[in-house]
Amino acid sequence: MEFSAKQIAGILNGQIEGDENATISKLAKIEEGVPGSISFLANPLYTHFLYTTRASLVIIAKDYVLTGPVTTTLIRVDNPGNAFAKLLEMYNQVKLNKSGVSKQAYIADSAKMGSNIYAGEFAVVADNAVIGNNVKIYPQVYVGENVTIGDNTTLFAGVKIYSDCVIGKDCIIHSGTVIGSDGFRFAPENEEGNKKIPQIGNVVIEDDVEIGANCAIDRATLGSTILRKGVKFDNLVHIAHNVEIGENSYLAACNVVAGSTRVGKNCMFSGQVGLVGHLQIADNTIVTAQSGLSKSITKPGGVYMGSPAFDANKYRKDYIHFRNLDELAQRIGKLEKESKNV
Amino acid sequence: MEFSAKQIAGILNGQIEGDENATISKLAKIEEGVPGSISFLANPLYTHFLYTTRASLVIIAKDYVLTGPVTTTLIRVDNPGNAFAKLLEMYNQVKLNKSGVSKQAYIADSAKMGSNIYAGEFAVVADNAVIGNNVKIYPQVYVGENVTIGDNTTLFAGVKIYSDCVIGKDCIIHSGTVIGSDGFRFAPENEEGNKKIPQIGNVVIEDDVEIGANCAIDRATLGSTILRKGVKFDNLVHIAHNVEIGENSYLAACNVVAGSTRVGKNCMFSGQVGLVGHLQIADNTIVTAQSGLSKSITKPGGVYMGSPAFDANKYRKDYIHFRNLDELAQRIGKLEKESKNV
Amino acid sequence: MEFSAKQIAGILNGQIEGDENATISKLAKIEEGVPGSISFLANPLYTHFLYTTRASLVIIAKDYVLTGPVTTTLIRVDNPGNAFAKLLEMYNQVKLNKSGVSKQAYIADSAKMGSNIYAGEFAVVADNAVIGNNVKIYPQVYVGENVTIGDNTTLFAGVKIYSDCVIGKDCIIHSGTVIGSDGFRFAPENEEGNKKIPQIGNVVIEDDVEIGANCAIDRATLGSTILRKGVKFDNLVHIAHNVEIGENSYLAACNVVAGSTRVGKNCMFSGQVGLVGHLQIADNTIVTAQSGLSKSITKPGGVYMGSPAFDANKYRKDYIHFRNLDELAQRIGKLEKESKNV
Repeated sequence: MEFSAKQIAGILNGQIEGDENATISKLAKIEEGVPGSISFLANPLYTHFLYTTRASLVIIAKDYVLTGPVTTTLIRVDNPGNAFAKLLEMYNQVKLNKSGVSKQAYIADSAKMGSNIYAGEFAVVADNAVIGNNVKIYPQVYVGENVTIGDNTTLFAGVKIYSDCVIGKDCIIHSGTVIGSDGFRFAPENEEGNKKIPQIGNVVIEDDVEIGANCAIDRATLGSTILRKGVKFDNLVHIAHNVEIGENSYLAACNVVAGSTRVGKNCMFSGQVGLVGHLQIADNTIVTAQSGLSKSITKPGGVYMGSPAFDANKYRKDYIHFRNLDELAQRIGKLEKESKNV
Repeated sequence: MEFSAKQIAGILNGQIEGDENATISKLAKIEEGVPGSISFLANPLYTHFLYTTRASLVIIAKDYVLTGPVTTTLIRVDNPGNAFAKLLEMYNQVKLNKSGVSKQAYIADSAKMGSNIYAGEFAVVADNAVIGNNVKIYPQVYVGENVTIGDNTTLFAGVKIYSDCVIGKDCIIHSGTVIGSDGFRFAPENEEGNKKIPQIGNVVIEDDVEIGANCAIDRATLGSTILRKGVKFDNLVHIAHNVEIGENSYLAACNVVAGSTRVGKNCMFSGQVGLVGHLQIADNTIVTAQSGLSKSITKPGGVYMGSPAFDANKYRKDYIHFRNLDELAQRIGKLEKESKNV
Repeated sequence: MEFSAKQIAGILNGQIEGDENATISKLAKIEEGVPGSISFLANPLYTHFLYTTRASLVIIAKDYVLTGPVTTTLIRVDNPGNAFAKLLEMYNQVKLNKSGVSKQAYIADSAKMGSNIYAGEFAVVADNAVIGNNVKIYPQVYVGENVTIGDNTTLFAGVKIYSDCVIGKDCIIHSGTVIGSDGFRFAPENEEGNKKIPQIGNVVIEDDVEIGANCAIDRATLGSTILRKGVKFDNLVHIAHNVEIGENSYLAACNVVAGSTRVGKNCMFSGQVGLVGHLQIADNTIVTAQSGLSKSITKPGGVYMGSPAFDANKYRKDYIHFRNLDELAQRIGKLEKESKNV
């Protein structure tokens, strides 16, 4: 993929300053620009790099006034950040535009396959699975029986989806992620010893969901574990049976949500956050890194910290004193001494 | 799979009230019942759903007295919860009853295969592996050299088992889990720089063990990392080299047990619990979520909380004061002021 | 593999005491020695096992004076620990010495393959990948397009490497690990709803790096996520986009490093440690288990504890008082009572 300054300016509706035949084949940060790359300048802190960058093209703001000579060709646009994001997206679309079903994939005869599907080597699509249009199934993916995959969804190499799960449209699931494993439920009170409770529900993932690498989303005991529209997970997230994550909620890496908990919409949980089971979490709840929710939250928009977590502002104040606890204890000791002397 | 009320009543030794020809093909919660599904009523809090459910069949207690009209067919039994669990189990057994070795699986000539084995597409059974009867090896599983798998064990899609490991009977291992990776041991003092200590031990998993998705169980440096009979792990659990987990202990998601630690029997660790290396943990120990054990525990049956953890009751009391630490500090300040005034 | 005492003594430059024809085929701990195994005695605490071990051979120090009769054959060397480590390494080298490309592997025509490569069943090497000499690609590994793998590197079963990533020489990557998944970056302020920012950078892993099982290392948005020479990760580690981990730093299991953070050289982080994004961490920093760094660290060689973490010695002192907080609060209450009485 090689593009000229002229082509790029056309795509971005920009104006060229310099060599309109300069060509690029990759995108780079301005401080890491090399010949053949295009970069952009949006953050004023990086302005000085404009005069030293080796990038062949740089996208800058229409009204930016040069303060010295530049060797790179400029493309002037209204919003360099947005323009560059547009290029990133185009680049990615071209790059990830795979299609065709490999002869070394296994597609069950009873599976229903949409149009323009990519299925890589050693992928498995099991009996009665229904795969939408433009779906990308990378090598070594496993799509179990009766699974449904919506249009335009991408499953990267090695994703495993157990039987009966439902994945929406425009989803992205990264390598190593497991969807539909059994929930962790046993009946220890049983006289025959610890006994597994069969997990016969499924996982339902709505449209526009992205799930990072090596996550594990358990199926429901009965009914469905649900990720609503627009949910985004980072890597290594664990979701237990019968959990529901509300629309557009974001869970960072290594989050753990225990069984039957329901998280509201637009929540944001930082890394290594944990939630115990059977909670109800209000919309727009924010939880700071390594914190743990042990109680339901009814008031939307709160920020929580600590393990167990409570109001983050209060936590921070208390934690300042914790950091001085040795001194506080000494002050108490001193008061006691004085008290005895009185 | 379709069953009539008559058939179900026969299986459960129950009595039909309503249409004995009503048929069902799935199991559902009473509040989510749809035509063609069977549900049950055990929890009194759900009683009102009996009068509105759309399920075709509902299992209820023999002595339950109706307080209004119902449209569903009833099956009366002694214990509706147990009866439904029995159906769940039957359903799962039928559903997971796969057999046959795929032509697209790779089975080494020197591997010893039991009877009635399922081996899915792109599964690998390497040299000298010994696979018991009724073992289910889902697609893309890797069974390394000299590995032994006991009768009736199921390895879901993509499980990876390194060479020389031993898996017992009646075990279930979920997708993405890795058994037998190298322990994390290096000899940094070595003059040649950081040097890997070869890990030539194995992992031994006894009978009746279930391991969730995307766990990682390291092999021993020498000897064995051991999971005893009846151990259950949730997803994303890490077990380091030379660890031993005692009979019937339960580890929830994202637990970390560091090298050479020995956990007793019947322990229960909540999510995100961590244990440092070289500990001895007494039987029946309970650890609350996100807590960390840094010392051995000799007294069985204790409950621990905090990081580092100590007695959970004591922790909870101290944590109440931590949540008021800002106020406590102010009270100290006030006392100091008064003290000066005296 | 069977060796005689004579052969072993030759390899280790040691002296035999006992039967020079005694043979062994495995290595064992002295307390777990069985006939046909070799063990060693280095730790004085294990000395008594020398007189009861069933191992056929035991390596001991040249100057060790026997205090009773032994049934095992001894091999005397200068440093028994080092000698045994040498045997471990030889054992492992022989054991892991695989080669040959399976007919059931998929190697793209455009891939460049070095000499003496092992590629197992159902492994994929995609277009334009460049694989060095003596590389071991276990079954079901995925090597994406344009990926480069340096000489002598081992990828265990099921490793997934996204396109464009670069892996150095002499690296070991364990099963289930994912290299090059997308960073977790979205632009929620966008008017069209939550919008994915394309991740077009890569991951660069330098020489001599070892990564445990089921880790996830995200690619950079632009540029590279970098693991420097000699870095070692335990299992289930998460590395976000654009992170850099300095030379010879060690991250234990379940570590989380958020986006754009740079970790210095020779750092050691215990299990379940988390770092927020955009930090700079000085060389030789040590972080204790379950702790979280929320601020950059400029002074090399510090030890940190807590969440958020601060100086570990100070934390330990404060934590002692936290464990007595209930009592401290009572002492404050008593002082207040006395103060009123004054």
